[in-house]
Amino acid sequence: MKKEDIEKCLTDYKSGRMSLADAMDKIENSNCANMGFANVDLNREARQGFPEVIFAEGKTAEQVTEIMATLVERSEKNVMASRVSADKAAVVQRKIKNAIYDSESRILYVKRDTSPVDEAHRIAVLTAGTSDIPVAAEAALTAELMGNAVDRVYDVGVAGIHRLFAHEKEIMAANVLIVVAGMEGALASVVGGLTAHPVIAVPTSVGYGASFHGLSALLAMLNSCAAGVAVMNIDNGFGAGVLASKINKLR
Amino acid sequence: MKKEDIEKCLTDYKSGRMSLADAMDKIENSNCANMGFANVDLNREARQGFPEVIFAEGKTAEQVTEIMATLVERSEKNVMASRVSADKAAVVQRKIKNAIYDSESRILYVKRDTSPVDEAHRIAVLTAGTSDIPVAAEAALTAELMGNAVDRVYDVGVAGIHRLFAHEKEIMAANVLIVVAGMEGALASVVGGLTAHPVIAVPTSVGYGASFHGLSALLAMLNSCAAGVAVMNIDNGFGAGVLASKINKLR
Amino acid sequence: MKKEDIEKCLTDYKSGRMSLADAMDKIENSNCANMGFANVDLNREARQGFPEVIFAEGKTAEQVTEIMATLVERSEKNVMASRVSADKAAVVQRKIKNAIYDSESRILYVKRDTSPVDEAHRIAVLTAGTSDIPVAAEAALTAELMGNAVDRVYDVGVAGIHRLFAHEKEIMAANVLIVVAGMEGALASVVGGLTAHPVIAVPTSVGYGASFHGLSALLAMLNSCAAGVAVMNIDNGFGAGVLASKINKLR
Amino acid sequence: MKKEDIEKCLTDYKSGRMSLADAMDKIENSNCANMGFANVDLNREARQGFPEVIFAEGKTAEQVTEIMATLVERSEKNVMASRVSADKAAVVQRKIKNAIYDSESRILYVKRDTSPVDEAHRIAVLTAGTSDIPVAAEAALTAELMGNAVDRVYDVGVAGIHRLFAHEKEIMAANVLIVVAGMEGALASVVGGLTAHPVIAVPTSVGYGASFHGLSALLAMLNSCAAGVAVMNIDNGFGAGVLASKINKLR
Amino acid sequence: MKKEDIEKCLTDYKSGRMSLADAMDKIENSNCANMGFANVDLNREARQGFPEVIFAEGKTAEQVTEIMATLVERSEKNVMASRVSADKAAVVQRKIKNAIYDSESRILYVKRDTSPVDEAHRIAVLTAGTSDIPVAAEAALTAELMGNAVDRVYDVGVAGIHRLFAHEKEIMAANVLIVVAGMEGALASVVGGLTAHPVIAVPTSVGYGASFHGLSALLAMLNSCAAGVAVMNIDNGFGAGVLASKINKLR
Amino acid sequence: MKKEDIEKCLTDYKSGRMSLADAMDKIENSNCANMGFANVDLNREARQGFPEVIFAEGKTAEQVTEIMATLVERSEKNVMASRVSADKAAVVQRKIKNAIYDSESRILYVKRDTSPVDEAHRIAVLTAGTSDIPVAAEAALTAELMGNAVDRVYDVGVAGIHRLFAHEKEIMAANVLIVVAGMEGALASVVGGLTAHPVIAVPTSVGYGASFHGLSALLAMLNSCAAGVAVMNIDNGFGAGVLASKINKLR
Amino acid sequence: MKKEDIEKCLTDYKSGRMSLADAMDKIENSNCANMGFANVDLNREARQGFPEVIFAEGKTAEQVTEIMATLVERSEKNVMASRVSADKAAVVQRKIKNAIYDSESRILYVKRDTSPVDEAHRIAVLTAGTSDIPVAAEAALTAELMGNAVDRVYDVGVAGIHRLFAHEKEIMAANVLIVVAGMEGALASVVGGLTAHPVIAVPTSVGYGASFHGLSALLAMLNSCAAGVAVMNIDNGFGAGVLASKINKLR
Amino acid sequence: MKKEDIEKCLTDYKSGRMSLADAMDKIENSNCANMGFANVDLNREARQGFPEVIFAEGKTAEQVTEIMATLVERSEKNVMASRVSADKAAVVQRKIKNAIYDSESRILYVKRDTSPVDEAHRIAVLTAGTSDIPVAAEAALTAELMGNAVDRVYDVGVAGIHRLFAHEKEIMAANVLIVVAGMEGALASVVGGLTAHPVIAVPTSVGYGASFHGLSALLAMLNSCAAGVAVMNIDNGFGAGVLASKINKLR
Repeated sequence: MKKEDIEKCLTDYKSGRMSLADAMDKIENSNCANMGFANVDLNREARQGFPEVIFAEGKTAEQVTEIMATLVERSEKNVMASRVSADKAAVVQRKIKNAIYDSESRILYVKRDTSPVDEAHRIAVLTAGTSDIPVAAEAALTAELMGNAVDRVYDVGVAGIHRLFAHEKEIMAANVLIVVAGMEGALASVVGGLTAHPVIAVPTSVGYGASFHGLSALLAMLNSCAAGVAVMNIDNGFGAGVLASKINKLR
Repeated sequence: MKKEDIEKCLTDYKSGRMSLADAMDKIENSNCANMGFANVDLNREARQGFPEVIFAEGKTAEQVTEIMATLVERSEKNVMASRVSADKAAVVQRKIKNAIYDSESRILYVKRDTSPVDEAHRIAVLTAGTSDIPVAAEAALTAELMGNAVDRVYDVGVAGIHRLFAHEKEIMAANVLIVVAGMEGALASVVGGLTAHPVIAVPTSVGYGASFHGLSALLAMLNSCAAGVAVMNIDNGFGAGVLASKINKLR
Repeated sequence: MKKEDIEKCLTDYKSGRMSLADAMDKIENSNCANMGFANVDLNREARQGFPEVIFAEGKTAEQVTEIMATLVERSEKNVMASRVSADKAAVVQRKIKNAIYDSESRILYVKRDTSPVDEAHRIAVLTAGTSDIPVAAEAALTAELMGNAVDRVYDVGVAGIHRLFAHEKEIMAANVLIVVAGMEGALASVVGGLTAHPVIAVPTSVGYGASFHGLSALLAMLNSCAAGVAVMNIDNGFGAGVLASKINKLR
Repeated sequence: MKKEDIEKCLTDYKSGRMSLADAMDKIENSNCANMGFANVDLNREARQGFPEVIFAEGKTAEQVTEIMATLVERSEKNVMASRVSADKAAVVQRKIKNAIYDSESRILYVKRDTSPVDEAHRIAVLTAGTSDIPVAAEAALTAELMGNAVDRVYDVGVAGIHRLFAHEKEIMAANVLIVVAGMEGALASVVGGLTAHPVIAVPTSVGYGASFHGLSALLAMLNSCAAGVAVMNIDNGFGAGVLASKINKLR
Repeated sequence: MKKEDIEKCLTDYKSGRMSLADAMDKIENSNCANMGFANVDLNREARQGFPEVIFAEGKTAEQVTEIMATLVERSEKNVMASRVSADKAAVVQRKIKNAIYDSESRILYVKRDTSPVDEAHRIAVLTAGTSDIPVAAEAALTAELMGNAVDRVYDVGVAGIHRLFAHEKEIMAANVLIVVAGMEGALASVVGGLTAHPVIAVPTSVGYGASFHGLSALLAMLNSCAAGVAVMNIDNGFGAGVLASKINKLR
Repeated sequence: MKKEDIEKCLTDYKSGRMSLADAMDKIENSNCANMGFANVDLNREARQGFPEVIFAEGKTAEQVTEIMATLVERSEKNVMASRVSADKAAVVQRKIKNAIYDSESRILYVKRDTSPVDEAHRIAVLTAGTSDIPVAAEAALTAELMGNAVDRVYDVGVAGIHRLFAHEKEIMAANVLIVVAGMEGALASVVGGLTAHPVIAVPTSVGYGASFHGLSALLAMLNSCAAGVAVMNIDNGFGAGVLASKINKLR
Repeated sequence: MKKEDIEKCLTDYKSGRMSLADAMDKIENSNCANMGFANVDLNREARQGFPEVIFAEGKTAEQVTEIMATLVERSEKNVMASRVSADKAAVVQRKIKNAIYDSESRILYVKRDTSPVDEAHRIAVLTAGTSDIPVAAEAALTAELMGNAVDRVYDVGVAGIHRLFAHEKEIMAANVLIVVAGMEGALASVVGGLTAHPVIAVPTSVGYGASFHGLSALLAMLNSCAAGVAVMNIDNGFGAGVLASKINKLR
Repeated sequence: MKKEDIEKCLTDYKSGRMSLADAMDKIENSNCANMGFANVDLNREARQGFPEVIFAEGKTAEQVTEIMATLVERSEKNVMASRVSADKAAVVQRKIKNAIYDSESRILYVKRDTSPVDEAHRIAVLTAGTSDIPVAAEAALTAELMGNAVDRVYDVGVAGIHRLFAHEKEIMAANVLIVVAGMEGALASVVGGLTAHPVIAVPTSVGYGASFHGLSALLAMLNSCAAGVAVMNIDNGFGAGVLASKINKLR
């Protein structure tokens, strides 16, 4: 409950516009749409600037549909679900007609926000290899749905470092950078050394053997010798997109 | 080498102001002060907006002194060394008279930047417990030396969550937040859920047994259910300060 | 063998009501129904207050059926099997007609205990997210089958902490609390800080990447800054239900 | 803030006994004694039934003294600090004359609670070996300072299982049991199979090689085949004592 | 090459019964039947007392058939393959008519050794639970094929320790004991404390969550407080059977 | 960009044969064939002596086809893709008629290099067991495609060490050796002790239980007591083949 | 309590030679000398054939002295303590005059057993390197104190495998073998492949970096391709000595 | 024993120049100088081209002295010991007058080889940071003692990648490269992508927190996206020097 709401609640109650019971109730029972299996955080848009995003893994298509429908009804913003399988998406789309499914990023979304994007403040999303693209795509589309201009720079890993330098323009122009890499994750350090802007590193589970499902890239990124590189969970493109958006909108 | 330098180099050479050998040399041998044991990155201030910071661990007091002296001479900005023991600091201070040592954060610095700080864009540094303060102090002082206004909010861990809510004002006012916590690191998730601003989580090695020297907090923070929380290496207050500063200065 | 049984055995033998061979036999060969593949602990109800519970994973439907039938015959209490797949349950139900299958918790049970439940001593089962519900359901139903009143409070994770506070009533009213959470498992610490009652934390394998199949939540819970939080194995809702029941019945 | 306090605050404010500013202040700034380095949770006694316990590791003797003095002044209960080195204890004792130091458990405490202990509800603390005693002593003394009757049963590990059975009386009589063991931690499972009462298992870092500083015992206890055994962090005798006390006082 | 063979080779060569080339060849190219994909160790029976055992995992049915046929032809002993799937076994049996498949242990064998078994020197194979039986069966059948008398004592885990004590007779009579257990693996310590005979502990991957596929049992067994317990790889019933047989045949 | 190209570019530009824009462009945008999803490193052959090798895992058959076609067109050397499934290979072969698929090593290649192989400088590839052969085959065929003479010595693990010694000739004749082994990986140390030539050790994921998917062999090889053994990632036969080829071609 | 004791107890009681209370007491309170801090297992000699061995790590010199004195008094066998520091040993020796300290193995012992050793049944203790000797010495002396003939074969690691083969005689003559090795632990596999006798492998913490304090050798030994190698905890020479002795005495 | 020795032995024996006993002896007991605690491999120079190098860690100064003296006496080559502390070196130098101690690399050596070095075949040793220098120095001096020309290129980590490119000349000129780096170890991948020559990567334990004593760099290097990079144990500069020397001498 925000400060002004507390104040209004207190003054309403004092003035008699609200009963004691109602005032207590209001404080105790606001901000969630409880559906039994899920407790949708309707207050999140107010707090965080974007409605709650549905993490579809481990939820049934029916649960995703119901939550998405609620969010669509209660918010004017874009609504999105992440980690949606093609099968689940098809089920949801039968009910929510204007939902769009992006198979690369596995994001299902309803786009309603038509406000113009600030093209001067751009987010660059880089990948080391081709196999890192799904995670990068999740980051990029998330950031776009939250209203950011995004540049995609794919397959520029350090084994052929001239490929990276060929994109110096996008890198230097970016306000915020997301670096997505598996295996040894070295790209984050190299990019972090080139730019003065914030770098968000996303390790991926790409690799085999001693990559231990992304552990090698995770540890490498946490130990980056380039100061000011922050790290997300393995394969967490979504979180990187959210954070990049938060940073990109600061003025 | 920045683009304008390449252009200038090419035109100077064409116009005859520079020989072929010199043009090639200039491209190949710039930007470092090579001292044999260290290769100081004098170009970093241009690239990153702040001179190279000396990581003192594993360097002798003499090496720290020599590098710091070089940086002081070549830059007009504040100069700092992190992870400096009290003994090493004393040795350096004998040579570099205006170096100040902050024992809590173990930072040794020369302050020269007197430009006014932007008080409207603030960084909040929170800790879960008292033992996390040294790491937080490193983050806070780093950010201050880089020209930011910083609020310190210490010992507000979730076991007594009202202590955190008592500081709602600083939390909500912060442009960027750094959350420093050991043990289960839960504070990062709670703060991440309260604010719409970027949260940088720093796990600390505070704890014992199954904290495994910070691993528990590290994993917890990487798995934060609050979207948009990024994570630094264990005990890396310095990196958090750098990143927070980079973010806080974006406009 | 309980003390009174030893005494009875000794006096029976002395009085001649029992031969030496029989006395020795009785001590050596009691308390199990040996079926070759399983050695059912018929003494467990006496020792533990509830018959042995069948862990169905790794047992065939036939083995589950046979053990369950034996337990149903030898005990008057509720009989239950945990981690039963829908397929296995269907097979068992063909033989044991009154067995009920709860697909959410994957528990198969025969309910016979009709003694009234003590509504004043309640167990609260909380989850951080929707995906944690199966584990929570296992804990809740186990506790109910052992004769406890249970409140379910689902999807109240710390990323939107007001959702938790909206349930303060159930939390404060609970005699024992079970907190089920994956990812960073922070809910256990927050709840542990709010209540004076025992909190049993159950990490779940919900998450991806650096959650390492529940390791992140496990370590976080073991390192809870809230004193007096105890931890179960990852996904062990059953064990939490048993322990909560044992605690809830103490007077 | 407890419910009755909210109500009182609201009615006081409405009746004019309290100004709007004061009502808002009261809600925002209660319950902590902020000393800069520490934010003592004065509300903990109300919430948890026992004042905040000082974790002395990583705090200076002066900090421990100051916090302990504050707690002694504000509470009527016993006050205690855990993980206090002999040196630190000596410093504190110079200021707080009636503080007692128990070197085995490394607890420093001020005893003031003289209410009689309930001898019928006992906590048993068992260890597998002699080296586990310091952790067990921490658990036992913590529970005693919180007002419980405690039985100590030391060095009864499973390599000579008759030693355990020789103590069947204390085990069976205990309302709650704490089992402290390093190495393979098997004692927890054996005790958990004998008693119907709650068992709290505390792994210790006793062992070498593949005990990995307590990891072997921790994993073993988490995987106990005896249902209803809960686990604390490695060497966390204090937490076990707190939890046992919470459980032992339920009626 | 055994000593007597070297001697014979040398004397044959000296006496002219063998040429220099042949003598060198004999030393270099003996003891293996090289099939390209496999290099069957025909010398193993001489060295180890039993022909090479085929590890079928990762080999095709055709490869298993060919190796088994070679061994059957070259040895008079029992021949066996371990970790054979039912499908693979069926293929082999089409070619090797007298091969018998035991589905519980997944061993495929040809039995030819009809020498009487020494019933006075027995190997006891114990399991903690029902799910550990396949590993135990592999150990037991391996030992039997190598000519030992074996007792199977299944499902006697420590959660109901009287079940174990009911089998004291077999335990005390055993010359060598194999203890097979997953989860916390405590049975090995308890048995190791009861008997004066060698105990071979086999951790199994039975369990879930923090059992980490057998790691918990493995570490527990390595840290057994009972002296003289040796440990095999997780699920390595075969190795335990071989070692028990080697020990059991010592005189 | 190689030195002579820079020089040519600079002089062409000075002489007016090239415009400023073109000179800058040439430096910035060379060396890659950007296909959106992949950024093929056409410069690699110049830098590394062999065209980029396609890592097919995580790429669609269409992507592999397109990249392979580009490489075939732009290079005169052999072209290869590693980790190609049989299904993917079949799809590619429909478009690229002369592509050959080796199912053992899962390499798909187009052979065009007909220059004679240097038979005097040989690479020996050894395996400990039969199951290690696919990784060894990948190493061997990679080295052959890069123009080396290769000897395969399979199934010579240390459990029957005479099998290894029977191949002393190939081992001693090899210029470079690749040792491929899973489980305990001891073969690398034994071979490393026999030869004075470089040994490249490749751990494989062959094994079960505490092999932890190749971790045991990896750690063993890293700790080899034979000096001068270098280690590749688990199952990385390809990398071993590349390195062996690089070494074998040094003069 | 052994069977004959139960029988005697029952018949004595029946005959009136023993009261009911005494019979119950005898069963409950035998077999330990409880000293408060330690519960010495006086029954161990009967059960295991050798008195309890004192693990001195984590015990004070006074505790070691007291336990050792008790054992010396109650047993006629050799008495020993392992992991005794030189300082502790000196303290004990002041009280127990005939105690001998072996600094290499850190064993303190009182030798009284003068029965002749069976020279025909020998235990061979091998080490890979010089640094493994302390662990090997602990194994060897333990076995000797338990009455076995022991051969020490040190520094025969596989990097120079001819050093091992030079000792073929001792290896082939041994009834039981203990192989002590750090780093990659390959010696266990090679020895296991040479002999038909039981091999006990002891990994040591010798090494650095990725040896992870003995983990590399431990995993390697658990995965030995030589069947029938059993493994002890890292650095557990004592346990290996006990087990070898148990095996060596079987007839 | 080398082939020609076998042949000579056989013919000598046949011709009567050698007795049967002597021939057998010669085969069995050659090639080691057994000092009880160490079994010096005198045959290593013949097999490996350089005498056995003494690993001084875990050996006493006296042992190092004795082994070094033996090697100096039996070989004409340079003799060296690695990981020698300054204290130990001083002791050895008292006996072996011409031994030189290099404190940076902690190598103690006797230099006798005066043959000219092949300046055209150079080894380049690169480090990412200043703290990696001791490990690099060990590699460089080892290679020099084995007769190679070495270039040292220190502190050229990827956070300021122009520092690396400034050394393109040495990198491109090197026949073999050793890359020494801690933290995220990214330098190995970047260098591996630049050169066509073999790259040996040495992870160091430089770093803190999630570097886990070198694990992060180790995993990163094992997962290098640059093909043909091989990895040594953490901090194993010595091994890298040996391998680089072996490779550098191939023709």
